[in-house]
Amino acid sequence: MSEESKVENPKAKLEKSAISPRRAEDFPEWYQQVVRLGELAENSDVRGCMVIKPWGYGLWERMQATLDAMFKATGHQNAYFPLFIPISYLEKEAAHVAGFAKECAVVTHHRLEAGPDGKLRPAPSAELAEPLVVRPTSETIIGATYAKWVQSYRDLPILINQWANVVRWELRPRLFLRTAEFLWQEGHTAHETKEEAVDETEKILGIYETFARDFLALPVFTGEKSESERFPGAVQTLCIEAMVQDRKAIQAGTSHFLGQNFSKASGIKFQSREGREEFAWTTSWGVSTRLIGTVVMMHADDDGLILPPRVAPTQVVILPITPKEDTRAAVLEAAEKLASRLRARTFHGQPLLVHVDKRDLNGGVKSWDWIKRGCPVRIELGPRDLASGTVALCRRDHGAKAKEFVPADQAVATVPELLQSIQETMYARALAFREQHTRVIDTKEEFYAFFTAQNTDKPEAHGGFSLTHWNGSAEVETRIKEDLKVTIRCIPFGAGEAGACPFSGQPSAQRVIWAKSY
Amino acid sequence: MSEESKVENPKAKLEKSAISPRRAEDFPEWYQQVVRLGELAENSDVRGCMVIKPWGYGLWERMQATLDAMFKATGHQNAYFPLFIPISYLEKEAAHVAGFAKECAVVTHHRLEAGPDGKLRPAPSAELAEPLVVRPTSETIIGATYAKWVQSYRDLPILINQWANVVRWELRPRLFLRTAEFLWQEGHTAHETKEEAVDETEKILGIYETFARDFLALPVFTGEKSESERFPGAVQTLCIEAMVQDRKAIQAGTSHFLGQNFSKASGIKFQSREGREEFAWTTSWGVSTRLIGTVVMMHADDDGLILPPRVAPTQVVILPITPKEDTRAAVLEAAEKLASRLRARTFHGQPLLVHVDKRDLNGGVKSWDWIKRGCPVRIELGPRDLASGTVALCRRDHGAKAKEFVPADQAVATVPELLQSIQETMYARALAFREQHTRVIDTKEEFYAFFTAQNTDKPEAHGGFSLTHWNGSAEVETRIKEDLKVTIRCIPFGAGEAGACPFSGQPSAQRVIWAKSY
Repeated sequence: MSEESKVENPKAKLEKSAISPRRAEDFPEWYQQVVRLGELAENSDVRGCMVIKPWGYGLWERMQATLDAMFKATGHQNAYFPLFIPISYLEKEAAHVAGFAKECAVVTHHRLEAGPDGKLRPAPSAELAEPLVVRPTSETIIGATYAKWVQSYRDLPILINQWANVVRWELRPRLFLRTAEFLWQEGHTAHETKEEAVDETEKILGIYETFARDFLALPVFTGEKSESERFPGAVQTLCIEAMVQDRKAIQAGTSHFLGQNFSKASGIKFQSREGREEFAWTTSWGVSTRLIGTVVMMHADDDGLILPPRVAPTQVVILPITPKEDTRAAVLEAAEKLASRLRARTFHGQPLLVHVDKRDLNGGVKSWDWIKRGCPVRIELGPRDLASGTVALCRRDHGAKAKEFVPADQAVATVPELLQSIQETMYARALAFREQHTRVIDTKEEFYAFFTAQNTDKPEAHGGFSLTHWNGSAEVETRIKEDLKVTIRCIPFGAGEAGACPFSGQPSAQRVIWAKSY
Repeated sequence: MSEESKVENPKAKLEKSAISPRRAEDFPEWYQQVVRLGELAENSDVRGCMVIKPWGYGLWERMQATLDAMFKATGHQNAYFPLFIPISYLEKEAAHVAGFAKECAVVTHHRLEAGPDGKLRPAPSAELAEPLVVRPTSETIIGATYAKWVQSYRDLPILINQWANVVRWELRPRLFLRTAEFLWQEGHTAHETKEEAVDETEKILGIYETFARDFLALPVFTGEKSESERFPGAVQTLCIEAMVQDRKAIQAGTSHFLGQNFSKASGIKFQSREGREEFAWTTSWGVSTRLIGTVVMMHADDDGLILPPRVAPTQVVILPITPKEDTRAAVLEAAEKLASRLRARTFHGQPLLVHVDKRDLNGGVKSWDWIKRGCPVRIELGPRDLASGTVALCRRDHGAKAKEFVPADQAVATVPELLQSIQETMYARALAFREQHTRVIDTKEEFYAFFTAQNTDKPEAHGGFSLTHWNGSAEVETRIKEDLKVTIRCIPFGAGEAGACPFSGQPSAQRVIWAKSY
């Protein structure tokens, strides 16, 4: 059931939904079920590590391809650095060690052997002189490499990105949002001047914002993190923050200006144009498979996933309905022919991604499969349609039951527009939701009420975003976090209207965005 | 210096080469220098782990894109499985444990803490109940997952590939050929019948052979491994074997028919069409960044890399020569215009990959840079060329000094043909080399002489490939390995002429390929 059909039909609440529980009943459990039934991922036998299934990985591949092209268009190249980091490297940057040398996977041995009980065990004779950490992030190991590459200002800038797996031992793992191992990209750049590095940090944030908006249909706030939420070792952390359907915030991407902190820790020195020895200015930035979790939490409904057409691994699925053996061949042939015609059409300059589901399964089962997977458009085609020259066209964002019978020619002609319409509708819906739950709040009472009000219909809803003044002190942040589990998500750009902090009475340069968060 | 120019010019030996030592002087050291000066990769501070630099990673990306499309065209999908494998999983398959539970990275702790000396150490309180191994290959963890996914024959086949990093602790690491961490793809499929699984194993070998031949310009022998060289746990290991310029063999890809060994170990059971419970038939197959090492060893010359045009990250580099400031702008503009015209042309259906090297460096330095990187075509363009409307066209496979002055229009018109000619020349050269060093040998004396003869000119040359009969016994293999370091590289397909094994005098079904190998 989509939200629309629920509004239109008062009986909708009594109808069965494909996902149980519904969002309004138990949001966290609903999320797990959407991910599972949408075939995105599942927990593995290894604690905290997920298996990303083909449909989920296909979504990630589509995201990767787009981001990769955006990075390359702005002069970045890909490379690959070691999975392992010597623990002494983590110690090089004081703030970094505090942030990352904690819950991580530590490699201590390089061989297994059969122990006295016949079972495998780490061979005592093969203990490493210095333990290695499986990279939680790669600033230190990449910094050590750049230190070798850079001698002169002529060697700068270095503009490199890496697609990789990283590991952060999570005590409470949750598919895509917090897993011990996840996939991401991490950009690491080194520059001659502070200005260039700051520009880079902002340019990348712009790419993330554009990607979230135009591809994932996610409106995001952009801004800077407060010191307490900053990347360990960064001078400045910029971020994109999305609101999802339980009104909590998700940090969906970060871009860090690292100043000279890491170049000093790693020794990235160069001879300047003036012949002086200087430290490079560096940045790092990343988005991860967490983006998939964000898309799910923002766009899915009580029948499962709804994927934005621009990143869906399959944009149009054709479901041949073959109740009788004697018409089966003709229906399948018509389905393949329709698929070929659709593949000759384009959406945003690329051929449509069309799949014909020929599995020998009940039509209803197949249809629900693709609803739960969030395929943007389904086209059903049966023996009767063959005679009439029509097909049944279903757009996922209009709810599971929505169906329109149109001539096959018209379907071929209009599917690209339909996909565009779905993309725009999804963005507009997400934006309206965010606006509905974003408030300018200028008093402490209203602020506390906003984040503590119980919505009986949606026990998992968490207030929303509050734009509220702040005196800039960590003390206020700490108190509010303790009281409400609410934090500053970002200090938004260009919202600089001065005022008074309602928590301290002290002056505030601008309102900042407060919310509960993942 | 290319081989051709050496042959044509008797003085060539006296000329300086860009790589020192030359192949003929010290092949292993030449290889390291080609990789280093060609900007492919370098050793990192983490023992055995390499840094793949942008040019090397660009080559890998091109290989990935092609193979990925070939896998998808044959019905495979990508997915992602955990990096970590519980050690108990390795014990499940008897032969597998012997092969892989040895030199591997073992994770024993999930947290670091400051020790009494203030230095970081694995936290004693955070020792894992069961150590984890960083995947050396993923049959066991993927098998455990498939066991959950498969209930009925309707759930089969599963055709999945994974692009991932793997770790095998190598005692004598060597860039691309043997590194502790490397990148690869590993396909893992499960089937209803033995025949289907065998077909899959062979189909993939065909993809590998095609890819090596048509993209990497590598002629390969295809065949089956003898039992002693088989993948631990496989029923049958098929492989592609290439010869490189020191006449040793490199196993460049393997495809394993695993029978029901892993499905029994992991419990991949299904209800058959007849209602019986049966174990699935599985396969696994992979190629890795070792392919890069193979390309280097086969195609590079004493001036550095020569990359096959179909996988080169840049196919045409334009080198603007700007000796004077007053003509600089005009030359750069002409270079960009030429690049645009070239990018509008295609090679094998894809736009040409063209780069304009605008770095402010001496022209000779830039030119040698691209020679060492093996860029297939270089185009030099200077102020004088602007006046005459010509450019200097250099094809890398014709040696560093080869240069042809042609009208710019002609360059635009002929570059695609030129690339094709380079691709074909490289393959033909590699094939001729292999044929020159492949012998049919039917006596033990000749066999021993072939593999022990010293070539004074090339101290690192190692005989070549010998097609020689074999009685099928591991004993003969062991003796020859001990005597000569020579092993059976493969039992080639379709070479079934019976004869006598010269080592044992016993009957032999066919000649097999013997060689020293990497």
